This record gives sequence, C-alpha cells and structure tokens, in this order.
Amino acid sequence: MLIATPQSMHFEAPLALQSGTSIRAYDLSYETYGTLNADKSNAVLICHALNASHHVAGVYLDEAGAVKQRSEGWWDTMIGPGKPVDTHQFFVIGINNLGSCFGSTGPMQINPATGEIYGADFPVVTVQDWVNAQARLLDALGIQSLAAVMGGSLGGMQALSWTLQYPDRVRHAVVVASAPNLTAENIAFNEVARRAIVTDPDFHGGHYARHGVLPKRGLRIARMIGHITYLSDDVMNEKFGRKLRSGQDVKFSTQDVEFEIESYLRYQGDKFAEYFDANTYLLITRALDYFDPASAYGGDLSAALAKATAKFLLVSFTTDWRFSPARTREIVKALLDNQRDLSYAEIDAPHGHDAFLLEDARYMSVVRSYFQSKVAV
Amino acid sequence: MLIATPQSMHFEAPLALQSGTSIRAYDLSYETYGTLNADKSNAVLICHALNASHHVAGVYLDEAGAVKQRSEGWWDTMIGPGKPVDTHQFFVIGINNLGSCFGSTGPMQINPATGEIYGADFPVVTVQDWVNAQARLLDALGIQSLAAVMGGSLGGMQALSWTLQYPDRVRHAVVVASAPNLTAENIAFNEVARRAIVTDPDFHGGHYARHGVLPKRGLRIARMIGHITYLSDDVMNEKFGRKLRSGQDVKFSTQDVEFEIESYLRYQGDKFAEYFDANTYLLITRALDYFDPASAYGGDLSAALAKATAKFLLVSFTTDWRFSPARTREIVKALLDNQRDLSYAEIDAPHGHDAFLLEDARYMSVVRSYFQSKVAV
Repeated sequence: MLIATPQSMHFEAPLALQSGTSIRAYDLSYETYGTLNADKSNAVLICHALNASHHVAGVYLDEAGAVKQRSEGWWDTMIGPGKPVDTHQFFVIGINNLGSCFGSTGPMQINPATGEIYGADFPVVTVQDWVNAQARLLDALGIQSLAAVMGGSLGGMQALSWTLQYPDRVRHAVVVASAPNLTAENIAFNEVARRAIVTDPDFHGGHYARHGVLPKRGLRIARMIGHITYLSDDVMNEKFGRKLRSGQDVKFSTQDVEFEIESYLRYQGDKFAEYFDANTYLLITRALDYFDPASAYGGDLSAALAKATAKFLLVSFTTDWRFSPARTREIVKALLDNQRDLSYAEIDAPHGHDAFLLEDARYMSVVRSYFQSKVAV
Repeated sequence: MLIATPQSMHFEAPLALQSGTSIRAYDLSYETYGTLNADKSNAVLICHALNASHHVAGVYLDEAGAVKQRSEGWWDTMIGPGKPVDTHQFFVIGINNLGSCFGSTGPMQINPATGEIYGADFPVVTVQDWVNAQARLLDALGIQSLAAVMGGSLGGMQALSWTLQYPDRVRHAVVVASAPNLTAENIAFNEVARRAIVTDPDFHGGHYARHGVLPKRGLRIARMIGHITYLSDDVMNEKFGRKLRSGQDVKFSTQDVEFEIESYLRYQGDKFAEYFDANTYLLITRALDYFDPASAYGGDLSAALAKATAKFLLVSFTTDWRFSPARTREIVKALLDNQRDLSYAEIDAPHGHDAFLLEDARYMSVVRSYFQSKVAV
C-alpha cells in the first residue's frame, strides 16, 4: 500500500502572471510517489482538474499510524505500485495549483500585501501560470526533463500547455478527456455556475471571509450544474432513471425531493459546499475559459502545436459530452499536421466525462501499455 | 394581419386535480383565430410549453388601434391566414394553462379560500389536469371534437395526453420536439433550476409576495440553465463561439463579462426575471417531471398508447439534445406497435430544442402538408 505524505515548498521569487500582475511569494503543496532515479529521468508530473489536489495516489495515515478512511488519492486507480503508471518505475509528482483551496497559496490565505485574506483579490491565474509554477517546483527538485506530464480534463490542458511552454522539458504528454479550448456551451455552463456563486448574498463580492459567512447556496448550485455535465445521459438513466426516492409515492410537491436524481444532486451540492472555496471555483473555471493555445495563431491549432515536440498519448471517452472525442480529435489532427508521434484511444465507456477518473479495463490497459512500451526508459 | 384579442372564461365548478386536491373556481385565458364552422369540426387546440401563453398567433393593437411592437404570438410563424395551420380553414384556440403567470388562475392570484395571494399554496398541477381544464373550455365553446391538438415540447406532452384522456375528442395530434417522459438528465436540469429559485433568500418558501420581494436571482439562474439546454452546441458555437464581448481585450476577471455568450445568457436571465413568476416556474417544471403516461403500465409505452385512436404527426429536430429524436421515436414505435396511423419527420436543423419555435422551411412544409392533406375536412 502506498502511503502518501503531503509536502510544501515555499517560493520567495515573485511569479509573473499572464494577466500582467504577479504573485509576490507563494507555497505549493505536492506529493511524490516512487523514487527519482540517479539521472532524474523518470519523473512523471500529474496535473489536476477542477476539484482535485496534489493528493493523487496512495492513502494517508492518522496519528496512530492507521489508514485514514476514504483517503485514497483522486487517481489512485491509475497511479501506484504495479498500476498503469507504476511507481516502481516512475517518480510521480502530484501538485496543487495556485489559487486552489487545498494547500497551495490561494484566495483563502493571507495576502502579504494587506495582511488580510485574499478573497476576491487573489489574482486571476491561467493554465500557463500554473505550468510556470509547476516548472519552478521541478527546478527545485532538480528535475530538468519530465518522462511524462499527464492530466485529465483541465489537467490535460496543463499537460498540453507544458509541451508548448517547455517543449524541451517534456518527453511524453498524456492528455485524457480534454480539449484544445472550451466551446461556447462549456463557457456557458461555467458562467451559470459562477453567477450562482457571485449573486449569492453571502458572496459579498468575494470577501465573504470578512463577513464570517460562506456563499454555500451558490456553491451548491454550481456543483449540481457541474455534476450533470460530468455524467452521460445514459449513465444517469441507468443509475437513477425516473426512480422516486426509495419507498415513496409521488408527493406532488415543487420543493421536496421526489426523484432519486434530485436527492443525489442535492447531496453532491451539499457535500461540495462544505469543503470547496467559492473564489477558487471562480478562478479555476476562468482558467478553463481562457485556455486556448490556438488563439495567438488566429485559431489555427496546427500552427499553435508546431512548437510541441513531445510524443503524445491522447484518450477520450465516447459518452463524454463535456469534452467530446471530437475535441480530442482536433488535437490529434493538429499534431498529425505537424507529423508528431502520437497514440490516440477513444474508449467506449458509458460514464461520460467522469470516465477519466474511473477504473475501466481498456482505459487502464491503454495507459499501462503506453507507459511500458513508450515512456519507460 | 391577424389581430388577436385575449379572452377569459370563468369556471365555477371545482376541478379535481391528479394530486387529490382540487381548485375551487378558476379562470382560463384564451384566444381564438379563424372561424368555427357550422358543425364545429374545424377546431385546432394549441398547447403551450414552459414560457408561453394563450397568445399563440397574431398581434395586439394598442388603444389607438396601432399594432403593438413585438406583440406577435409565440407560434405566429406557424399559425395564421395562409400559414401552415391556416386560420382561413381552421378555428385555432390558444389557451393559457392553470398555474401560469400570464392570465389563467395561478400562484400570483388571490386564493379565494384565504383572501391572500396563492404563492406556494397554489396546488401542484399536472399535464393531465391541464388537459382536463382545456376540455372544459372546449365544452363551454360547444366543441365536442378537435380536428387537431398540437404542441411543442411540454405542449407536445399535452397533445399526447389528450389522445389518452379524451381519445374520442381528438382526430389528429401534432406532437413536436417532445418526449414520452423526462430522462434523469432532464429532471436534473429542472431540479437545479428549482433549487436556484427555492434557495434564493427572497423566495421565502414561495410566499415572497407577502414580503414585497421577488426571487429574481434564482429566476435568472434558472433561465440561464434552461437557455443552454434549448440551444445546440453547434448553434452556440456559430452564434457566439469564443468571441469576447465586442471591442474588448481579455480583462482577467472572474466576475465581469468576458465572452459574448456570458453577456447573452445574463441578458436572457435578467429579462426573464422581470416578467416570469417563480412559483409558476416550479409548477411547470414539476408538470414536466411528472408526465409519464407509461408509468401506469409498468413503463410499457406501447400498452399506454393503446388507448390513443387519433392520427399523429410527430416532428423532431436532429440537434435537439433536450428532447432528442430518439425520444420521439419511442412514441413512434409505441404507436406503430398499436398499428396507428402516423407521419414522422426528423428535421435536420441546427438550432437544438429551440427549432420548434423557428421558421424552418422543411418543418413548416411538413406541418402545412399534414394539415392540408390529412386534417382538412
């Protein structure tokens, strides 16, 4: 069993941000699994998506040395000893991004410029900024070149951005359930979620901490919307269908729970609102909105990806309607236009966007064989 | 030009509702276009969807006799002199459903039992209840049998329900962009919209009128969510894509509008919150959730539709992901299992669910030829 230990690194030098401003000093939370080899050539960086952290794999121990309940990392099915990304071979790094609420410097922490909690004053960070911050952590760890950078969804965008920002530091990029940018519909869902948060009377322009409240109503709605887009219509029908809440007859009520799916969504919303920070939600959805490497090339993704020299594994899932296979195929096409070395798998999986976090035998086997046959040094 | 005149009819006899309760006395708003023939055989009833009313066709005149700006009925492209449903031939009736905020008795009106505004005390009404109320209006107009009943989306559910509740009073049913029931995902979207409204601090359990406020924040979010589901991904990309709000550079802001699509959605939300009633929104989305004629037959739609003796025209739109063509095909299959007479058109249209309200030449021509060749008496 892989035991994980969160670590933190402090950076004194300011980080210039894409928006033109900078962060004065900051901390990054991270975890590592496996052993860095002598020539430091076996490092794999894992980038996280909206609702995740540096705790990618393994479990935590409590003070008595017992395994903490439900403390598995968010990609524990994928990463660990003997797993598709095998920590017997690879030195895997999980990192928490700037602006998060899980340890790295973010809006819930003190702004050194004012001595107050950042709140809405935390600067807007982009995928490009995150990758720059990640590169600094690698510098500090003495890792010049990554065997692979890997991520799903927003994490896949970071992996793609690595190949453009630091082409000579990435040998392989593994981009799962991702897209070269958001569609109008993707942005629309993000915007509704943000409006739910921002118009919650407890949001106070993002300075809720000063008022001793939390905009939980808005966070609940945001999470419910998000959750619908993570699942496929099919899996929702299979899991919940039109089932009434167990043991009930129809109540004929507009405000009470009638259907199982309602109960499930409310539960997900409530849970999320207890641990996630509203300003972080805004920041991360904006990072998604802004990501668009082709924009500097008049929308020509092939031109944008000319810089990328890494080899690629790209994976998409047939029922993912948030980041559909067609979006990954745009990346595939742009890489092929540049005659890059790539493997692409479109996995027939019923679970929608969520599939990238689940244990699907074909998906696991594609990643495993890519790491064994291509990444292994 | 068709000039429309809203009318209202009062009903003294209580209406028993599906929930077990009843409405004591009520008014129904309606409009009629064209002339009822001598044997009263040319009546076409139009049923409305979520955000519509009895004002189906024509325009209103102001007090000076001039045409009111933007007063066209919601299906004015479809219904009128020389239009697909030709008011030279047919006597068309538009009716506003119980629970609405556009004229018929609903939660914004006085509850005769208490002398106060109904608010959340307005009883839950279902598609079945609406059809029963519509039948009473027909009774009062002396119309025993409808040449056709017609509706899109939730209106199509009412048309379908007419053929089951009053099979001998309907000769044709025109069911457009509809479904035999909601999927879990459909219910999920409704539920998020309802939660946004119900958790708005200005909602006050549905008795906001007593507090002199309106839950506009919630209504805005509800409408934004709805709007996303009415449009196709393609039409959103074509109309808005990733365009920044005109003339702007990226502002790097989490709370301001950056993209055109955000501006559009906020506008739609603001507009809706000015005129739509929150309790009505809850009632109508619940009527959608509950509609499921197959449920009394263990989910067997073919068994449920055995009662329907009407002839059918069914229409769906290829890019409608709210009520996809597959859902209409379920109805088609169930009717064919009963060897019913039906026509089915799947229109290749880019506009998503909204297509049923738009003027598409093929769609218009399908409806026109059905009414000319099959419905005309």
